Amino acid sequence: MRVVIIGGVAAGMSAAARLRRLDEHAEIIVFERDRYVSYASCGLPYHIGGTIEDRQQLLVSTPEYLHANLALDVRVEHEVVAIDRVAHQVTVHQRASGNQSVEPYDTLVLALGAEPLRPPIPGIDHTMVMALRSIGDMDAIMARIDSGAKRAVVIGGSYIGVEVIEALCNRGLAVELVELQDQVMPLLDREIAAGLREHLEAHGVAVHVGVSARRFSDSEGRVSVELSDGRQLTADLVILAVGVRPAVGLAKAAGLELGPRGGLKVNAQLRTSDPDIYAAGDMIEVVDTVTGDPAIIALAGPANRQGRIIADQICGRATSYTSTQGTAILKVFELTAAMTGASEKTLRRIGRPYHKIYVHPSDHASYYPDAEQMQIKLLFAPTSGAILGAQIIGGAGVDKRIDVLATALRAGLTVFDLEELELAYAPPYASAKDPINMAGFTAANLLRGDVQFWYAEEYPAQANDALIVDVRNPDEYAAWRIPGAINIPLPELRQQFGQLRDLADGRPIRLYCMVGFRSYLAYRTLRQSGFSDLATLAGGARTLIAYYGAQLPTPAPLPEQLVR
Amino acid sequence: MRVVIIGGVAAGMSAAARLRRLDEHAEIIVFERDRYVSYASCGLPYHIGGTIEDRQQLLVSTPEYLHANLALDVRVEHEVVAIDRVAHQVTVHQRASGNQSVEPYDTLVLALGAEPLRPPIPGIDHTMVMALRSIGDMDAIMARIDSGAKRAVVIGGSYIGVEVIEALCNRGLAVELVELQDQVMPLLDREIAAGLREHLEAHGVAVHVGVSARRFSDSEGRVSVELSDGRQLTADLVILAVGVRPAVGLAKAAGLELGPRGGLKVNAQLRTSDPDIYAAGDMIEVVDTVTGDPAIIALAGPANRQGRIIADQICGRATSYTSTQGTAILKVFELTAAMTGASEKTLRRIGRPYHKIYVHPSDHASYYPDAEQMQIKLLFAPTSGAILGAQIIGGAGVDKRIDVLATALRAGLTVFDLEELELAYAPPYASAKDPINMAGFTAANLLRGDVQFWYAEEYPAQANDALIVDVRNPDEYAAWRIPGAINIPLPELRQQFGQLRDLADGRPIRLYCMVGFRSYLAYRTLRQSGFSDLATLAGGARTLIAYYGAQLPTPAPLPEQLVR
Repeated sequence: MRVVIIGGVAAGMSAAARLRRLDEHAEIIVFERDRYVSYASCGLPYHIGGTIEDRQQLLVSTPEYLHANLALDVRVEHEVVAIDRVAHQVTVHQRASGNQSVEPYDTLVLALGAEPLRPPIPGIDHTMVMALRSIGDMDAIMARIDSGAKRAVVIGGSYIGVEVIEALCNRGLAVELVELQDQVMPLLDREIAAGLREHLEAHGVAVHVGVSARRFSDSEGRVSVELSDGRQLTADLVILAVGVRPAVGLAKAAGLELGPRGGLKVNAQLRTSDPDIYAAGDMIEVVDTVTGDPAIIALAGPANRQGRIIADQICGRATSYTSTQGTAILKVFELTAAMTGASEKTLRRIGRPYHKIYVHPSDHASYYPDAEQMQIKLLFAPTSGAILGAQIIGGAGVDKRIDVLATALRAGLTVFDLEELELAYAPPYASAKDPINMAGFTAANLLRGDVQFWYAEEYPAQANDALIVDVRNPDEYAAWRIPGAINIPLPELRQQFGQLRDLADGRPIRLYCMVGFRSYLAYRTLRQSGFSDLATLAGGARTLIAYYGAQLPTPAPLPEQLVR
Repeated sequence: MRVVIIGGVAAGMSAAARLRRLDEHAEIIVFERDRYVSYASCGLPYHIGGTIEDRQQLLVSTPEYLHANLALDVRVEHEVVAIDRVAHQVTVHQRASGNQSVEPYDTLVLALGAEPLRPPIPGIDHTMVMALRSIGDMDAIMARIDSGAKRAVVIGGSYIGVEVIEALCNRGLAVELVELQDQVMPLLDREIAAGLREHLEAHGVAVHVGVSARRFSDSEGRVSVELSDGRQLTADLVILAVGVRPAVGLAKAAGLELGPRGGLKVNAQLRTSDPDIYAAGDMIEVVDTVTGDPAIIALAGPANRQGRIIADQICGRATSYTSTQGTAILKVFELTAAMTGASEKTLRRIGRPYHKIYVHPSDHASYYPDAEQMQIKLLFAPTSGAILGAQIIGGAGVDKRIDVLATALRAGLTVFDLEELELAYAPPYASAKDPINMAGFTAANLLRGDVQFWYAEEYPAQANDALIVDVRNPDEYAAWRIPGAINIPLPELRQQFGQLRDLADGRPIRLYCMVGFRSYLAYRTLRQSGFSDLATLAGGARTLIAYYGAQLPTPAPLPEQLVR
């Protein structure tokens, strides 16, 4: 059996290595266009920033090592330029010599990944407009920095863009971010992403959202970036990080079927429309775990597992790839943002019914030093409570909670199950009621009808029609409050039913506190004391303010857009 | 409705608080024998050690706060001395005044916790022999330290014992540990606990295992501890941490039924044998998630959730408490040890069939700074692969992986599911193949018949009967090896089939490397090349050496007991 694998990084190399383990006698040839195989592509920004000091660390493996230990025939700087499906052979261009050769295959594995998008913006071919996808890209960016670059513009505020920003800041550059959407990290919902923008700004990054680059031009040896709103930014270096698209050119030319999203179409066995050709990684379309729709989700974890499954398939095993849920995590300076499953945006877009809750727990016992508060947003199905998605932003412990939620989602657990999860508790690690339990309690309370929420996005309307009651302490109320809110501190609530009834005068009552716990207690008391049409602000003032983009604590009134 | 709750810490206070939220009008009275309620009992060692500087931090709540916010009637220094089930009333002794009163109840909740075991050892009442369970205990220990204590002996090497050791070391005391079992942390399996002992010793703790205290006596104002092997230790302070037992005295006196393990018997609704009396927390017997047997598992998380469920029950709701899986975590200096589900010891004891694997992955990408290796032991059912238990020891990221495994266990996932879990990956947080995936791969390989293991405990026998082959590099082999092992480095294996066959001469071949990955590759190659009766050492040399208690790297031959 002769297996040819095109692409020697995540998916391709996983397939090759497992194939060898399963079949000692297969002939396994890996063609990699680049000079390197099996390198740490996710580590590139961290070498630029100096966190990973030694470039060699990124080169996880070599053709020599792979030959010695796994008897793999890995050929770097070999680009496959054509697939002849009828003849079962590929045409290979050897970069060094310029020679072309033809290599037969019994089974072909495509693992070509994705390529950075390069929109047709005038001047985009300026030498200072760079992307970061390969070791070569990284070397070029570092050479540019070493040559004395002082200012950088990063176009695109998703994963790679944000990771590169941190790297450039660590190298002492002044950095500006240009993002077309109206927020950093458009995959996240607005109120969760808000903290990322604040954090970038606190680290000196100038953030421009809702604008795009209209033109790049040379400006006395630097590059000038003209924005869609007419502003001009000047920099010594522009990083283009506006996303990637599946590298399907070769597959398309060979007549393989694409999916509706433009990626290569594969079935659950990761077979393309040609039964002798498999594909994996960033180039394929997968099934989205939550929506069930075809999706292109470029993530290293799924790519590696897909590679393994292809090896299984080639060896006649029954495994299959079920779906990708989009679990992802981002470090930006001291902050961590993470997600799994569907976002609220996605659920809205596809019209899927959902509920949401917010909690703001500490990563570990608040009485133990260095506890950090995180924000958890949990999306779940009405009635069943099945987990649909989660987003978390914070510091320590965010990665842990997203992994627990990713596991729960994959296992089909509900918010009622989250209430009962028995997670590891000691004060340095968690609380006796873990943040995950707290999210479960809050969501289950909603589904059981024990609480009714009002939400940040309903703010101006609710404030106009209802009596807004702040149940925090007077000093908190004095420092910041929702305009028009009255203050009845929770400890006084039971003595103030009469006054509250007078003030409400038949209007709905909308409660809030800082994170939603005290207002939940107030809600329970009032609801059982004859008050109806009550709701408590989901996530409290903290989520409201994140949603509208102001900062906490704010001793002044709310920003313009929040004032009725 | 008048609800009386006895005990105002974890379970009792959770019950009280949720009961108020569910029922604004219930009369809720909490009697607490101690001066404090709702305090951070898990934080006590950390205040002793100075990590939590402010004692006030431990006092999470007060009767005044609970009255103001939750309308609870919390009476501290009130000890319930008798329950009259027929009359539905309790007798309460008020410590300050010495007065006794009788309080009626409609429903009674017992949350009395556990009390430290005090074995009948001569001299155990010596004033310097102390336990740590309450704020008062903590204050007494700290006073003793402040009075100039220099040396301490801790009796018992489980959670509290080990946490107290760290605290005492942090305060500059010289500490000796006396543990009756032959290892630190007897709840853990031996090869996982080994690292804890090493770590304690590296921090200067003298560890005495397999011995007990036979006598305490005064020695010129200090305390002398005579051990069962005749040795004498002298200290200024002895901490007795030999375990706790359910505080069932009051319940027993009232004629409530106990379970087979000596805890209070409750049903899934946490009702005792008296339908008007509920119980929760460390005093009750629960169902063990994995074994299905009654068990006494003193953990804060379950106690809190049980309290909530009792409140639900009192309010006529349908929730129930299913089981406790014993998820727990321990910090000792820079090390973390954690577990969930059954240990191998437990599975052996109850005769439950199981398989086990070990992996030693890094907590995050090894090319990103500060990666720390952890040891994961995973126990699972033959055939189905259902997760039965896990133990992890290491540094960063141990807490995350035990929580993912705890969630997977609770969800009924199998090792095949662990292969597919989609966890959050970026280099600072994990690897593209997360440690959990790696554990899944390894376990699934075993169940699918792709690998056969031999285990540390089989070592001497296997070494006598088989050819032991070390597939590491020659320099690793030169530095340390299993006595009698030959060296065929993995990269040379495919050229050495003939020599290997000659050397084996019909004997089984037992492979090993450092952690088990290279020897797995060797296994796959050999098995597909005509070799039979092969096995690879589970967890590699690292697990073997942990099992036998030596240290790595060891340039000298193995300790006596390993030499054939």
